[in-house]
Amino acid sequence: MANLVRVSSQSRSTAVAGAIAGIMREEGYVEVQAIGASALNQAIKAATIARGYLAEDGIDLVIVPSFSTVMIDDTERTAVHLAIYTKPQSLVAPEAMMLAA
Amino acid sequence: MANLVRVSSQSRSTAVAGAIAGIMREEGYVEVQAIGASALNQAIKAATIARGYLAEDGIDLVIVPSFSTVMIDDTERTAVHLAIYTKPQSLVAPEAMMLAA
Repeated sequence: MANLVRVSSQSRSTAVAGAIAGIMREEGYVEVQAIGASALNQAIKAATIARGYLAEDGIDLVIVPSFSTVMIDDTERTAVHLAIYTKPQSLVAPEAMMLAA
Repeated sequence: MANLVRVSSQSRSTAVAGAIAGIMREEGYVEVQAIGASALNQAIKAATIARGYLAEDGIDLVIVPSFSTVMIDDTERTAVHLAIYTKPQSLVAPEAMMLAA
């Protein structure tokens, strides 16, 4: 079972970023779950900040988002689930490829 | 210059998803910009919906988020910039790797 970081609208982005960066350093993979627009905002900001933390270690990340259904207090809620992978070095933007050519 | 899709809080997720999917099919790369929590929510939901559209073509995507500063009405705003790449087939979650082994 992969590590799951649950992010709420009250979560501090930098604290979540630290958690994401720590797990990425150890495991190279982490999953983040957010329910609602402001929780998702915190989650994406956290992943963006984590990229800065990880850059010192020469690590970068990519996000694959998906929807999932979770039960909260007997109510079905749609969560956004972010699978965070180590970014392959082969992954470069088209402009970067042109600049390198 | 890569295609830039600007998403606002009023953007319809499915319309943005269609735009993302269309550009990904043609170019394999697109950039999305969102300012504020609800715009970012729409942008991430759109990218998630676009994964469903692209699955029919055997294409998947990954997101690399970054912050950028944009000027709106002479005011500096922090935007979240999503670079969307075609997902390399080599990118698999640790559990998926274990299942395949």
